[in-house]
Amino acid sequence: MFDAKKTTEGIIEFIKKYFLKSNLKGVVLGISGGKDSAVVAGLFCRALGADKVIGVTLPCHSKKEDKIDAVKVSEYFGFKLFNLDLTETYNTFTKEFDKNFSELGIEMEMLKDSNINLKPRLRMASVYYIAQAFSTFESAGYIVAGTSNICELYVGYFTKGGDNIHDISILADLTVQEVIAVGDYIGVPKEVLYKVPSDGISALTDEEKLGVKYDDIAKVIYGEEVEEETYRKIEALHKRNSHKFNLPKYIKDEE
Amino acid sequence: MFDAKKTTEGIIEFIKKYFLKSNLKGVVLGISGGKDSAVVAGLFCRALGADKVIGVTLPCHSKKEDKIDAVKVSEYFGFKLFNLDLTETYNTFTKEFDKNFSELGIEMEMLKDSNINLKPRLRMASVYYIAQAFSTFESAGYIVAGTSNICELYVGYFTKGGDNIHDISILADLTVQEVIAVGDYIGVPKEVLYKVPSDGISALTDEEKLGVKYDDIAKVIYGEEVEEETYRKIEALHKRNSHKFNLPKYIKDEE
Repeated sequence: MFDAKKTTEGIIEFIKKYFLKSNLKGVVLGISGGKDSAVVAGLFCRALGADKVIGVTLPCHSKKEDKIDAVKVSEYFGFKLFNLDLTETYNTFTKEFDKNFSELGIEMEMLKDSNINLKPRLRMASVYYIAQAFSTFESAGYIVAGTSNICELYVGYFTKGGDNIHDISILADLTVQEVIAVGDYIGVPKEVLYKVPSDGISALTDEEKLGVKYDDIAKVIYGEEVEEETYRKIEALHKRNSHKFNLPKYIKDEE
Repeated sequence: MFDAKKTTEGIIEFIKKYFLKSNLKGVVLGISGGKDSAVVAGLFCRALGADKVIGVTLPCHSKKEDKIDAVKVSEYFGFKLFNLDLTETYNTFTKEFDKNFSELGIEMEMLKDSNINLKPRLRMASVYYIAQAFSTFESAGYIVAGTSNICELYVGYFTKGGDNIHDISILADLTVQEVIAVGDYIGVPKEVLYKVPSDGISALTDEEKLGVKYDDIAKVIYGEEVEEETYRKIEALHKRNSHKFNLPKYIKDEE
């Protein structure tokens, strides 16, 4: 049985030890307004103190409500929240792309996936930019915190070069239900904790995009029974996205 | 003894097999004007045919000469070369950062490292954007090729979330000398192959920035003798950058 108190304390201890060992000061992370970044931010506040946590909202043609929820989270835990709007950066990039590639006949509609994945990559570049700026500014190490949980990781539900790039990972061994239990334990505002997760980019929820439920993914990970078709869907996602974990690499012949 | 012919053929075979197995069509990579991207582009042209290779120059406040060398490489191997200028995107981003963080007292000079690392991250986002656009446009898989060699990897001389993000790695087991031998074998233009490597970003060469020579790094990797101080410097770099390979991750207690 999952013990939220024990896991919360385990994570806090893990963070404290790692920061001490590595002589680090603080952490930077994007605050999306969803539960994962809220739980991560809260755990770092408990471990390091809220003054060592730098949250950033990184809107990019985003919904206003996400910002409101991000503010709620920062107010509850007491960490500083900055804003860095990526909309203009995104627009500048896509305009430049059009200028050089439109003559090929690549139409707007064909760039849907490119555009969806550009946002988490710009967000990654942003949090690293900010972490390095604070490290120099305060002559002390700031690192980037990741928010992926084991369900998302298992089916490869992340953007390579985007949200999978970070310096410390504290939810990667927890299922979505376990993340919620930890969030509940540390007091993450309910309207954030129980909000239906979506990427804030497409109009769909995560589960609609994936075509499977997080609870079923957790069951598959832990070898519990699910419907045959669900099992096949989840394993197909796992296999299809395995390239995100395994880089094919040429190794010299050892003859 | 390193056999350039055998390794070249081995890499070409490796690429062919992987593309066939994964049902992929082509490759996208940034062409910097330096030897590594030239050698990688040349090997993919030999393996897949030049019409399956999409090179991109991604200038960002860059030197004009790099572009000239990139064109030379594309003309020699016959692959298509696009240009996507990131200067405006970079400027838009840094302006937006200033707007939100300057009140803290973070000065220009303090952003040197942030700025240096922003460029390879924007380049990564760009090549993935282009690869996904071509995949949709041609209904066929395009992936991103990496250019890191074993010497750079050993000392962690790359930007996390930047040039270390790619989908296939063909030089990662080769030393700098071995990359040059392969490049010589496939005919990479001499002025590119023997150009002193630099990041095209700071004013220093790679070896000046690192404080050690690539040949000495190769010796350390293969257990050959180098001066005591050189050895210590290389091992210190290796250790200092090991966090780029090992993500600290909390694992639940198994009690």
